[in-house]
Amino acid sequence: MDFKLYYAPGACSFAPHMVLEELGMPYTTQKLDLAAGDQRKPEYLKLNPHGRVPTLVVDGKPLTENVAILTFLGGAFPDKGLWPKETWSQAMLLSALAWIGGTMHPAFAHFFRPIRYADDAAAQEAVKAKGFASFHDYLKQVDGWLAKSPKWMMGEQYTVGDPYLLVFYRWGVKSKLPMKELVHYTRHAERVMARPAVQRVMADEGITLG
Amino acid sequence: MDFKLYYAPGACSFAPHMVLEELGMPYTTQKLDLAAGDQRKPEYLKLNPHGRVPTLVVDGKPLTENVAILTFLGGAFPDKGLWPKETWSQAMLLSALAWIGGTMHPAFAHFFRPIRYADDAAAQEAVKAKGFASFHDYLKQVDGWLAKSPKWMMGEQYTVGDPYLLVFYRWGVKSKLPMKELVHYTRHAERVMARPAVQRVMADEGITLG
Repeated sequence: MDFKLYYAPGACSFAPHMVLEELGMPYTTQKLDLAAGDQRKPEYLKLNPHGRVPTLVVDGKPLTENVAILTFLGGAFPDKGLWPKETWSQAMLLSALAWIGGTMHPAFAHFFRPIRYADDAAAQEAVKAKGFASFHDYLKQVDGWLAKSPKWMMGEQYTVGDPYLLVFYRWGVKSKLPMKELVHYTRHAERVMARPAVQRVMADEGITLG
Repeated sequence: MDFKLYYAPGACSFAPHMVLEELGMPYTTQKLDLAAGDQRKPEYLKLNPHGRVPTLVVDGKPLTENVAILTFLGGAFPDKGLWPKETWSQAMLLSALAWIGGTMHPAFAHFFRPIRYADDAAAQEAVKAKGFASFHDYLKQVDGWLAKSPKWMMGEQYTVGDPYLLVFYRWGVKSKLPMKELVHYTRHAERVMARPAVQRVMADEGITLG
């Protein structure tokens, strides 16, 4: 299989990038400059009509949405061990991915890109404030999950959900939230960042935690 | 397996309700009155800490998030034929479910529940207006998908994605959007509503299209 990941440094495409590296199969990447509007250029919109990262092109066919990309990379290569084996655990992981992608990520977007959600400047400020508070609440909820989990999000097994969580931990740090207070999430982030595959991807994207 | 669905009439829980009925396996339901705040009562928060519908309880264990519930109901019962057999088609369907749940549904929520996204009244009005416009855009995008698909969302096979789309078609009608202009989506909605399982669920929830 031929994999090509379209990503932007530190964006949520960081998650499938870490997963691709962890899988140990060959892949290529194409960096987009979001500030320059690369994601709205016709050639990219052909792959992803929503104009967002990530897009994973597999044997020439584009797949969008992190929930689907992460599930595909985990579930289609069960021997690589990044996806639970048992059906119920798969459902629980998918539930977590869907909540992260459909609730926690949008909350950050309200803070980071309020222009998507209201047209006038005063309303955008209100959206930003509420999004920031919601994002912080959701990060605390993740800390609560990780408090119950000894090692990784799903227990003993490192899955595609763990690098996904690192994306949002990093966004919390970048947003100056008091992330150190979230001791379980902090320990989890350190554990994910200790993985050689994650270190290689951070170097490749040119990003750091703080 | 023992299934119990917690739902509110016409809410997005309508999707897994239609799927359960279509599967033809026994299940029970528990109706929540969202206006009365049933979803924030301690006994429900134990099942779903996010205080949202749906929750599907399977053999006593709760599963939340439509993307995960629909995938579980489709994928764990492949003989029932509501989930694609081929891995890439599964990925494409999951991508669509994730976009519907993570992008189209939140747009409607901005219109329907703006209080989630801003604290002051003027900002809420701005959020509502933008959410309404985005929701309409997204419904048009779905119409575009269905223009390319001869019968169902994924082609010849009726999958868990089809009843999920009906939820949003109905919300469009309820919101007084010009849904008849979306001819492909309208034909699709009629086709879904012609299914006996869907008719039984609409009667059971006490809902109509208009």
